[in-house]
Amino acid sequence: MSSSYGENLRVTIFGQSHSNAIGMTLEGIPAGEKIDTEKLNAFMARRAPGNNSYSTPRKEADQPEFLCGVFNDYTCGTPISAIIRNSNTRSQDYSELKRVPRPGHADYTAEEKYKGFQDYTGGGHFSGRLTAPLCIAGGICLQILEKEGIEILTRIKSIKDVEDKGELIDATSGKTFPVVDDAQGEKMVALIEEYKAKGDSVGGIIECVINGLPVGLGDPMFDGMENRIANIIFGIPAVKGLEFGAGFDVAKMTGSENNDYYKYENGQVKTLTNNAGGILGGITNGMPLTFKVAIKPTPSIAMTQQSVDLKTGEEKELVVKGRHDPCIVPRAVPVVEAAAAIAVYDALLGQKKLK
Amino acid sequence: MSSSYGENLRVTIFGQSHSNAIGMTLEGIPAGEKIDTEKLNAFMARRAPGNNSYSTPRKEADQPEFLCGVFNDYTCGTPISAIIRNSNTRSQDYSELKRVPRPGHADYTAEEKYKGFQDYTGGGHFSGRLTAPLCIAGGICLQILEKEGIEILTRIKSIKDVEDKGELIDATSGKTFPVVDDAQGEKMVALIEEYKAKGDSVGGIIECVINGLPVGLGDPMFDGMENRIANIIFGIPAVKGLEFGAGFDVAKMTGSENNDYYKYENGQVKTLTNNAGGILGGITNGMPLTFKVAIKPTPSIAMTQQSVDLKTGEEKELVVKGRHDPCIVPRAVPVVEAAAAIAVYDALLGQKKLK
Amino acid sequence: MSSSYGENLRVTIFGQSHSNAIGMTLEGIPAGEKIDTEKLNAFMARRAPGNNSYSTPRKEADQPEFLCGVFNDYTCGTPISAIIRNSNTRSQDYSELKRVPRPGHADYTAEEKYKGFQDYTGGGHFSGRLTAPLCIAGGICLQILEKEGIEILTRIKSIKDVEDKGELIDATSGKTFPVVDDAQGEKMVALIEEYKAKGDSVGGIIECVINGLPVGLGDPMFDGMENRIANIIFGIPAVKGLEFGAGFDVAKMTGSENNDYYKYENGQVKTLTNNAGGILGGITNGMPLTFKVAIKPTPSIAMTQQSVDLKTGEEKELVVKGRHDPCIVPRAVPVVEAAAAIAVYDALLGQKKLK
Amino acid sequence: MSSSYGENLRVTIFGQSHSNAIGMTLEGIPAGEKIDTEKLNAFMARRAPGNNSYSTPRKEADQPEFLCGVFNDYTCGTPISAIIRNSNTRSQDYSELKRVPRPGHADYTAEEKYKGFQDYTGGGHFSGRLTAPLCIAGGICLQILEKEGIEILTRIKSIKDVEDKGELIDATSGKTFPVVDDAQGEKMVALIEEYKAKGDSVGGIIECVINGLPVGLGDPMFDGMENRIANIIFGIPAVKGLEFGAGFDVAKMTGSENNDYYKYENGQVKTLTNNAGGILGGITNGMPLTFKVAIKPTPSIAMTQQSVDLKTGEEKELVVKGRHDPCIVPRAVPVVEAAAAIAVYDALLGQKKLK
Repeated sequence: MSSSYGENLRVTIFGQSHSNAIGMTLEGIPAGEKIDTEKLNAFMARRAPGNNSYSTPRKEADQPEFLCGVFNDYTCGTPISAIIRNSNTRSQDYSELKRVPRPGHADYTAEEKYKGFQDYTGGGHFSGRLTAPLCIAGGICLQILEKEGIEILTRIKSIKDVEDKGELIDATSGKTFPVVDDAQGEKMVALIEEYKAKGDSVGGIIECVINGLPVGLGDPMFDGMENRIANIIFGIPAVKGLEFGAGFDVAKMTGSENNDYYKYENGQVKTLTNNAGGILGGITNGMPLTFKVAIKPTPSIAMTQQSVDLKTGEEKELVVKGRHDPCIVPRAVPVVEAAAAIAVYDALLGQKKLK
Repeated sequence: MSSSYGENLRVTIFGQSHSNAIGMTLEGIPAGEKIDTEKLNAFMARRAPGNNSYSTPRKEADQPEFLCGVFNDYTCGTPISAIIRNSNTRSQDYSELKRVPRPGHADYTAEEKYKGFQDYTGGGHFSGRLTAPLCIAGGICLQILEKEGIEILTRIKSIKDVEDKGELIDATSGKTFPVVDDAQGEKMVALIEEYKAKGDSVGGIIECVINGLPVGLGDPMFDGMENRIANIIFGIPAVKGLEFGAGFDVAKMTGSENNDYYKYENGQVKTLTNNAGGILGGITNGMPLTFKVAIKPTPSIAMTQQSVDLKTGEEKELVVKGRHDPCIVPRAVPVVEAAAAIAVYDALLGQKKLK
Repeated sequence: MSSSYGENLRVTIFGQSHSNAIGMTLEGIPAGEKIDTEKLNAFMARRAPGNNSYSTPRKEADQPEFLCGVFNDYTCGTPISAIIRNSNTRSQDYSELKRVPRPGHADYTAEEKYKGFQDYTGGGHFSGRLTAPLCIAGGICLQILEKEGIEILTRIKSIKDVEDKGELIDATSGKTFPVVDDAQGEKMVALIEEYKAKGDSVGGIIECVINGLPVGLGDPMFDGMENRIANIIFGIPAVKGLEFGAGFDVAKMTGSENNDYYKYENGQVKTLTNNAGGILGGITNGMPLTFKVAIKPTPSIAMTQQSVDLKTGEEKELVVKGRHDPCIVPRAVPVVEAAAAIAVYDALLGQKKLK
Repeated sequence: MSSSYGENLRVTIFGQSHSNAIGMTLEGIPAGEKIDTEKLNAFMARRAPGNNSYSTPRKEADQPEFLCGVFNDYTCGTPISAIIRNSNTRSQDYSELKRVPRPGHADYTAEEKYKGFQDYTGGGHFSGRLTAPLCIAGGICLQILEKEGIEILTRIKSIKDVEDKGELIDATSGKTFPVVDDAQGEKMVALIEEYKAKGDSVGGIIECVINGLPVGLGDPMFDGMENRIANIIFGIPAVKGLEFGAGFDVAKMTGSENNDYYKYENGQVKTLTNNAGGILGGITNGMPLTFKVAIKPTPSIAMTQQSVDLKTGEEKELVVKGRHDPCIVPRAVPVVEAAAAIAVYDALLGQKKLK
């Protein structure tokens, strides 16, 4: 294990890239929460492939079918389960990968872990496709958080060496390319297309800002907000780094520079700066909770790569077939949002215990 | 919750900086593991304060008393509990902090979370002192891992803008200042003393390399090695960032640069590079597992800081009294090692199920 | 929460009696276990309704569709999910029950718990129908346990005051009515039909004997075999009592009567008697693990019952419509078997860690 | 694992009968709950040995020392840990038991499970002494529940074939011998002393009634109130059976007899009878929650018993030395109360989430 996450709610992700279906089970959502399926479908569409030049041409509608847990449009208190049927799969593309693992993928590690029984088609359970059910769960949490006055903003902070400009204050979710400065966004798209043409791929950084959190959310030690968010964010394939607030920059700072001094603002305790990213001792301080996620370049590239044949024990050149994103960062943006929503709502459900 | 960590073992950390004792309970350690208490005490001493110019003068022997779980020097299969009595506490130093929270500490967030019942003396449960019991648990796991041929190396990678040089190949744990290049280490010490003299503090980065891991360790999604390590590492106070392998640098790379190509080496599958930090799909690939941790500068500085009086609702200047480290990074090194050992051994216990 | 069970594996049950589907997710099953779907379907058929005079005429094929987790007939190591579509539902039968709760059912408690958002049709998540997905999970575990040499025997021990005769040594699963002494079985069937004709229902006791368990299975305190089995057995609707070995009779015994004395048998430690039901200190001792389960009479009876109208606040007579079993005991037999299999296999997966 | 229990709180029990100390860690108790230590000590005294003719003469004060988690008499929100030092131990009494296991004890099963590393002195972690830390945790929960208007009543229902008379309506905790009908209690004491004189022991049944629970407590499937209570009650050594409400008697009843019909009483929904023991579908219905626990006769008897020598492989007669209770039932009464309090308060903490 574990394809499950959560303390006060529990989301379980199941499925493989080419299995009959992928899906999720979500326990612990209180009864009486209205689920707006149109809104959820719109959220799912932000992650869905095939929408533009820089994502895989594999077309998937990715609209969830709810099996249970929602009754007359409201959560009924018992587990919610929703699935997405897999279609448009081309399993024949992957037959060689059982023997010759793709660099940067889980082919080799899963083959070893599961002793040859791994479902290698399309990356199996390790496929980025499994972020779709994560978005179902996250999309539900987002709708509930919105009603609690909590807002989760995301943007692409950088693609390779092109950085977005400006502060993340308003939602970028309505944009085709989710950046603050559209001019920088256009440069990013151009960069992605340039590397796509080369048969290569690029990575980037996603930023997330969560507004409206109450003071006191999160628990000490291993259930602090950083731990909770880290635990789910590193469940998104391709994430290799995570930092909160000033993040790795704190390592270069002095205490007097890094400490966020307190002040009063409209009778509420606030800080002058927000190097802590809204978290002290694992617990929210009422400032925006901020974090950044490093996404590696898609490992499936069209260029010839050096691999090994696990059966013959020989080194072997590999050309990855199949349809792949030259840059997974844009599609990962709603996934980060979903993951953050699940982590925050889970913590919030725990907080309510104290009332 | 939760001051507990683990799936196949479970460590629970308890105590406050100035409570009667701090300690830990460790469940799930198989019976029959020999505990070398001298070795454990030596490990604890690496974290203990008061050893040198750059740590707090608060002297604590920090030698654990085992209450149970060890019988005739061997684990007996049932929960292990060990405590450290708190002594040399100066609770009077902290009386003002309930009203006027220290910037960068959990004073304010804990006060809000616990609705005024927080033990504010010495930072309570949020004190760095609570990393001592984490080191007891980690020290036990380290001893077991060593017998399994698994080695955990750590070093200070940087203090502020001074970087260590060279690769982390051999243990630095025998050194007074744990770096690879001692000349750089001397510069770091000088830097720390410089900021100590100013009444300020500095942050830094710790690197960890884990050798000898089997292929196939870790689970998909939320129990991958990154998630497992993140979940415990962010439990160490002052950590604000975590990256695996090339980490945030992957965001600037192309797929062809970042992908670690496979080769055979002495009949074993290895990779030419190790940008993945030994982890693909959350699962170890047999290469060294590597990660880096950003540690913020100690928030307790001697300089006057701006805070608020929670009782009067006025802004107020604060001078933090008490004894504090000008740089927590050196003492955090064995803590990172302990945390890594717990995460790895927990995963390993799960892996053994499949045999 | 929680509709999830397990430590080393985790089964999550989802669905409502009349939702689109019911199903289960099963995590933690090692890769490489062959799933015999014909055998599983045969097991499911033992629980399915409509097979005879003493069960509900609601016909459900109850054959699971596997969504994922099984690849080329073998488990692939990642979560298994399987569903059963609901069909042949008559939701109109239940519309009144939201207001006038059926005695002995969860109608009232669920309505209160879920604040009016409960799916009241067909008992919702509280329906006995939800034991079908439990049987999917249990059926899978049974197949694996069989390969480990572990055998789970069950029988109807009594229906009302008619008791089965003889010891439970061989499987009764091939019989139409699962008892040791078929003459007693015929009396039980006659009794059930007698009460069916009256519009009433009857309860009974199910016995379970587990052979082939290794010595040392189970953990101290709250994860002993009794706790593990109790935790899942009380998840079966209608169970009101559980006893291990001599059970409640121990309360009337002396220590010298109750203690199972040790002996050697073919070089193995055995006991002369088995009042402990194979469990000492929560841990198996190599003797058959035995327990008995009290099943209450089906609460849905055709007779007029006294209830209340939750809307008007008035007392009201109720006649339960719909199709119901006059005795749920026969169909609960494979459910007890499934539950026992899950509990035992979960414990066994933990045990293997120590190897 | 697991010596831990709980979902919304988590109690971990540690220690062995003769280790330096036994104790417990309790996470999840909200901040701001006043702990009355005198009241707690009085509760502990009800379980403590050496108070009368029918318990072991081993004298233990059993007053907990709080290590942390309580600050100025109030819970401070972080883990509570409390220990009891072991003293008055006679480890030499037990040296033979490693080779020749006592019938009815965990000596043999623990020796096998822990591969010879078990702490066999005094029963190790499997000793009834470990119910003392359970009483610390339960005693704390009891104090909080009392403020919530929830009352837990217990009594000895029977010792061997002597049954108490009357209904359990008022607390028996103030009595020397906790029964409703003192005349029956005197017969029970006489019976215990009779078997003590013979060097034998007797078992009995404990009844528990919980008043004041809100409607809607408990969760479906595996976290119903029955499951929650069963999970902790079977953690008490010597428990071999558990039944709720009418319990095993339901198996002999018809639906029309067993169903608890609804009525209104002072505007509240109540039932005419309480065969369900206050639980329907795992969820409380506002009636008293009732259950009964079968306690086996103490296995440590003075009579010669048949055992085996695990080293020589020969059968061997055993005379158990040491000091033991001729009947553990009276001392188990507060333990059942403690266990019930923990289970109920854990469920209640979860319930509060929905507010």
